[in-house]
Amino acid sequence: MRHPTRAVKAGGLLIGGGFPISVQTMWKEPLRSDTLAAAAKGLRDLERAGCDLVRFAVPDLATAEFLGRLAAESPLPLAADIHFDHSLALRCLDFAVAKIRINPGNIGQEWKVKEVVARTRDRGACLRIGVNAASLPHDLENNHDVPVSMLKAAEREMELLARLDFHDVVFSLKSSDVQETVEANRLFAARYDYPLHIGVTEAGPLIPGIVKSTLGIGVLLKEGIGDTIRVSLSASSLEEVIVGQQILRAVQLRSAGVEIISCPRCGRSAFDVQSFVEQVSDFIQGIKKPLTIAVMGCVVNGPGEARKADIGITGAGKKAIIFKEGRPHRTVPFEDAAAAFREEVEKLL
Amino acid sequence: MRHPTRAVKAGGLLIGGGFPISVQTMWKEPLRSDTLAAAAKGLRDLERAGCDLVRFAVPDLATAEFLGRLAAESPLPLAADIHFDHSLALRCLDFAVAKIRINPGNIGQEWKVKEVVARTRDRGACLRIGVNAASLPHDLENNHDVPVSMLKAAEREMELLARLDFHDVVFSLKSSDVQETVEANRLFAARYDYPLHIGVTEAGPLIPGIVKSTLGIGVLLKEGIGDTIRVSLSASSLEEVIVGQQILRAVQLRSAGVEIISCPRCGRSAFDVQSFVEQVSDFIQGIKKPLTIAVMGCVVNGPGEARKADIGITGAGKKAIIFKEGRPHRTVPFEDAAAAFREEVEKLL
Repeated sequence: MRHPTRAVKAGGLLIGGGFPISVQTMWKEPLRSDTLAAAAKGLRDLERAGCDLVRFAVPDLATAEFLGRLAAESPLPLAADIHFDHSLALRCLDFAVAKIRINPGNIGQEWKVKEVVARTRDRGACLRIGVNAASLPHDLENNHDVPVSMLKAAEREMELLARLDFHDVVFSLKSSDVQETVEANRLFAARYDYPLHIGVTEAGPLIPGIVKSTLGIGVLLKEGIGDTIRVSLSASSLEEVIVGQQILRAVQLRSAGVEIISCPRCGRSAFDVQSFVEQVSDFIQGIKKPLTIAVMGCVVNGPGEARKADIGITGAGKKAIIFKEGRPHRTVPFEDAAAAFREEVEKLL
Repeated sequence: MRHPTRAVKAGGLLIGGGFPISVQTMWKEPLRSDTLAAAAKGLRDLERAGCDLVRFAVPDLATAEFLGRLAAESPLPLAADIHFDHSLALRCLDFAVAKIRINPGNIGQEWKVKEVVARTRDRGACLRIGVNAASLPHDLENNHDVPVSMLKAAEREMELLARLDFHDVVFSLKSSDVQETVEANRLFAARYDYPLHIGVTEAGPLIPGIVKSTLGIGVLLKEGIGDTIRVSLSASSLEEVIVGQQILRAVQLRSAGVEIISCPRCGRSAFDVQSFVEQVSDFIQGIKKPLTIAVMGCVVNGPGEARKADIGITGAGKKAIIFKEGRPHRTVPFEDAAAAFREEVEKLL
């Protein structure tokens, strides 16, 4: 059962309220006049990969202007990440920026927060309050129960916004420690109905980062906690989105696109599964229809997996057998396997 | 609490009985006279990466002989994967092969199973019974409750071995579906005390495969289920081992080696975290001591993460600051950052 939350609107995207769990990422390069075209193209690529929202760091006014230009033509809603200087948030809100990530606590005086909230409300945008275990308020940072401190930090920001009767807010409570992240979000979800943006922060390079993110995000999603997810990797934004989609698929919250069952290969088989998968990978990634494909090295588990898949291919001696509807359909030499397989998948689509 | 299991010996490795959870992989190339040297070197590389056992497919007698030669000089225990032909298992057991993965059900007559068990017992080796959802006995394969069918298949094999009073057996119940894998292992662990080898089979190419494996294995380990793990990827054996180690680390079952907290980078920072991590990656992978390293782009969370790490580096304007014991220790230009960082880590070791 998904934890019930209120719905918050970020441009055309609804977060919480039972709407589909969205996948977001953050743009990794500075926005300048000479990087703007690449960013615009990057947004289109991310959107095609299944990204629902992209966040940009806005460290200065020039970036706010560039972000505004980008937002005007973006195929998906954009969020601005603001620290310290509330005037940057105000400037972003002059444009079609859908969401502001800001922590009132690091903005300073209450009148500044009031200004940001008033402008956000006027523009129909929303806020994200992002609590991070590595930048807690000073009086909370030496507490040994980190998840409780994270919750308290979130509650302070929440109280300030609630006094202004502003509730179009998404919260996040992130730590680079998986267990702290999971605990903090459980504590929050048990008490409040604001939608949660979940993720393990600074999860690291590709492989350890995928492992930590999958465990933290996957465990929470399986408990029904989380309305939007962000995988934080020291890798590309596109990889973050691909991993996010795969996490949703693994917890059975998304079924569009291709599920590949492929064997790890062993010395038993002459059919090189890995290189076959690489050959058909671009073709497969373009498929939006739900489809299960089995790519298996040999007859030990090959026919069994092929039976459960929409289409399967299995090495058998020096040939490959293509299965359809669980039955052998066509036998081809290895060198023709990729072309024949593509042909048969196309017939299915 | 870890689910209590009996200990089973595979060469120098103890599986179950509260011994550390081991990481295994499978060799992906056929064993032939011209591939034997590469396999021997591969075993040494896998051992250095933290692998505890390597399994080889043994489809014919020639492979059994080569495996025997490899086992005589292997730095870690080897397992033979046998299907259909029990004489291959007998031949492997003439050598220092530590473990036989075999399913009595696909070996045929009981006298053959008896022979394998007798020889395994004589040699002080052990067996693994590997149930796979894609190759269940025919009378179980159309049952809609797949985890229950997997359990029943395991129980049949178990009963046969128990009649022979043989209990040095590790079981595995794998499916390419994460949820089926988790359920089947829960059912088994609730009833039996044989050690469990866990993994999601045929999990797919690198990224989706890591996601599915982490979720399946991670959830089970967090419940105390699992004594040895194998990550099945259509990728290299080395990557399977690295992912396995990272899963153990993420569930806090292993602390040796380096934990990297590294930020995903955003447009705020000029310090390229990803390329810095790549520059120091080989150096870092060689460290066996438990060490937490924080590599952060900017001062928003940088000093906070550096405080929690043994050593940290954070971009700050056009320079990088190295932190030790939570305090700024040294400031260097970006181009000197990797060298200076390596120097400071070496001082710590």
